[in-house]
Amino acid sequence: MKPTSARVIADLEALAALTTDARGAQRVAWGPTWQAARAWFTAKLQDELGIEPERDGAGNLWATLPGASPKSLIIGSHLDSVPGGGWLDGVLGVLAGLEVLRRARESGKPPITLRLVDWADEEGARFGRSLAGSAASAGTLDAEAELAHLVDRQGVKLPDALAANGVTLAGMGTARAYFDRLDAAAYLELHIEQGPVLEAMRKPTGVVLGTMGVERHQLTFVGQAAHSGAAPIHLRKDAFLAAAEFALACRDISIAYSGKTPRTRVVATCGVVKVEPNFVTAVPGSTEISIDLRALDGKVLGKMLADARKAATKAARRHHVEVRWSPLLHITPRPFDPTLMGFVRAAVKQVTGAAPELPSGPLHDAAEMAGVVPTAMVFAQSSPGISHTKVEDTPRPALDKSIRAFLIAVDATIAHLAAGAAAPRPAARRPARARA
Amino acid sequence: MKPTSARVIADLEALAALTTDARGAQRVAWGPTWQAARAWFTAKLQDELGIEPERDGAGNLWATLPGASPKSLIIGSHLDSVPGGGWLDGVLGVLAGLEVLRRARESGKPPITLRLVDWADEEGARFGRSLAGSAASAGTLDAEAELAHLVDRQGVKLPDALAANGVTLAGMGTARAYFDRLDAAAYLELHIEQGPVLEAMRKPTGVVLGTMGVERHQLTFVGQAAHSGAAPIHLRKDAFLAAAEFALACRDISIAYSGKTPRTRVVATCGVVKVEPNFVTAVPGSTEISIDLRALDGKVLGKMLADARKAATKAARRHHVEVRWSPLLHITPRPFDPTLMGFVRAAVKQVTGAAPELPSGPLHDAAEMAGVVPTAMVFAQSSPGISHTKVEDTPRPALDKSIRAFLIAVDATIAHLAAGAAAPRPAARRPARARA
Repeated sequence: MKPTSARVIADLEALAALTTDARGAQRVAWGPTWQAARAWFTAKLQDELGIEPERDGAGNLWATLPGASPKSLIIGSHLDSVPGGGWLDGVLGVLAGLEVLRRARESGKPPITLRLVDWADEEGARFGRSLAGSAASAGTLDAEAELAHLVDRQGVKLPDALAANGVTLAGMGTARAYFDRLDAAAYLELHIEQGPVLEAMRKPTGVVLGTMGVERHQLTFVGQAAHSGAAPIHLRKDAFLAAAEFALACRDISIAYSGKTPRTRVVATCGVVKVEPNFVTAVPGSTEISIDLRALDGKVLGKMLADARKAATKAARRHHVEVRWSPLLHITPRPFDPTLMGFVRAAVKQVTGAAPELPSGPLHDAAEMAGVVPTAMVFAQSSPGISHTKVEDTPRPALDKSIRAFLIAVDATIAHLAAGAAAPRPAARRPARARA
Repeated sequence: MKPTSARVIADLEALAALTTDARGAQRVAWGPTWQAARAWFTAKLQDELGIEPERDGAGNLWATLPGASPKSLIIGSHLDSVPGGGWLDGVLGVLAGLEVLRRARESGKPPITLRLVDWADEEGARFGRSLAGSAASAGTLDAEAELAHLVDRQGVKLPDALAANGVTLAGMGTARAYFDRLDAAAYLELHIEQGPVLEAMRKPTGVVLGTMGVERHQLTFVGQAAHSGAAPIHLRKDAFLAAAEFALACRDISIAYSGKTPRTRVVATCGVVKVEPNFVTAVPGSTEISIDLRALDGKVLGKMLADARKAATKAARRHHVEVRWSPLLHITPRPFDPTLMGFVRAAVKQVTGAAPELPSGPLHDAAEMAGVVPTAMVFAQSSPGISHTKVEDTPRPALDKSIRAFLIAVDATIAHLAAGAAAPRPAARRPARARA
């Protein structure tokens, strides 16, 4: 049966009508709009497929279509969104997965088992810990240590928000064991790119090479506040100028380590800057600045960090200030499975005539899955190429093509798994903390 | 009679005991501790000198010791402080002025009239408009336009705070006429430097050349927020990097235009930096940054501003962002009177063996007076060279020398005025808005 995107797009529109307001998608995990989205999704599974989905201890929602073999292909993404998010972020992958189940059911019993998962709290929008559900399944979440203390802006504790959804911290610890019983042989995810790369390449859909590793740190430059009129330049200890020099040096580092292709591009971002005392008449006495370095190649990432450290020390010395580093996050690069990427590449090429490749800078649930099962992803073009806003979108022709490419890649993966040729297990299995 | 500092220092200590707490001086204008300081000062004038001070319409407190001639030397500074300020800021000049009156009284009737003024609200600490009292006397304050709308952090309106002190906006408009009746021939002020220049020169006291002109602007760089992982460097419009480049360029500009002496040194400061959205995972979409340029030479100041504009445009272009300028403050340089500076120079040299010269970067009431009467200032060394903190201080030997130098300069000025040799009126008389 030739794959089409019509039902997926209709479902996307229906869910958007239900869970989006003038400010964008409002499906924040654990809240009422997210619960409404899940109720709608559950009804679809029940009504169209007769499937009663099951929740694991982390609140992930699993819909299973048993096949001739218990060997399972997992399709997943997330229904939750940031407040005021885009209509496709996460939802696209879940509803494309629904279409996978529908198509399989229409063709009779599938040769292998198909499992569709709606991961819980991918965004971490309310409490700050993203990928909570998929990390629990991958065994990389220490719920008690990482989640017990988190509080939202209204003062609600994460454990209380979980309890209102029938989830406990202890229950989250059981999600990995649940996952281990699934006989997972592959994981596939379709997601909107949320970046400008495919748009800049004029490509509707692309092959994701993996998720970049991340080195995220906070630096504090400490000098001496002084009056803007009273302190001569040569006697100053201006903490902001040191931070400014560091930020520009990090940009130069990212350019120096970037190759010419998306695969070899690396990025460096200073996103948070806080100056004290922050008066027009005050030489800044201290400046906090964050650095977020990303690369698909772990060795390159290590070199970038080493260079950034040198740059910070040099900037501090030049401006007669001190600098302290405080680590925020370390994530290992997660390259995807070559065999599955081959199916994705062929499918994207079949639909669009080309198979552009790019790494994902943002994290996705697929990054957690890549640690425990062969994994691949398809990206749908973003236009405009920005994320976590209501204007985040994929043009309809690109949306159609990316859904069709995904369905074709799924067909190839099912055929491959059914043929008994088990995809090679990925080499890296060490748990790694993973946050978007 | 040989001038000594003993009584001045004893008075400074007494007032500090009355109006300083563990966080520093608390004599914020219009408030109870400031009122207590003025009551203490008024009692001193009454008890020691039999002088009943008079308030003008702006709340400035005037103590007059009539001389043989109505021609007047005005000595002034301010009793008000920032919250948690230094024990000498402003108070030093007022209490040195008290000593001037005491010495004159002890020597019989002075040849000219001596007037000591405690300017109201020099700091602008509560409502943001500094030099209010002296600007009112100089005729450069438009009270209705500049003050009527100001509100403090507790929501109290400035006119209400004035009313509690018996001052009205209309009354402030009469201060210039009051001043014009004083037959002012010269203005002298002693103030703590509040900067590191004299300390770096190892000089206890110095000759102030004038107050620097100020060009203060707010810039807004506007680019495009994007995800730190999703946006390749070459597709970014990073507003913070443009601001960082601008800030470093302004430092280079200040170095390029600075001469080797304090007189020719200029400064540039980026004190306020606000990044949006200010997330670790977000390329900054916009950045506000302030620039505060200061120079004693107005032509140099103009060139610095022109160069800063070019630097902002260049930085914006390089990072593919827009930049908007919004003026905050323009102050004309106020060079002091050469004749009076000659007396100050001789006095400082007599006491310390040298006469270091430096401009004042911060504004003082003397900057307002310089527009209407020949003016000069003496600086006492700061150690540490920082301002508006409780640790702001002048070491005792430097305090002693600066007070003695000031008293000697006053004696020379009195003799000069008494000899009938009217000091030349300053050339520049245009009102200029003046804020610290």
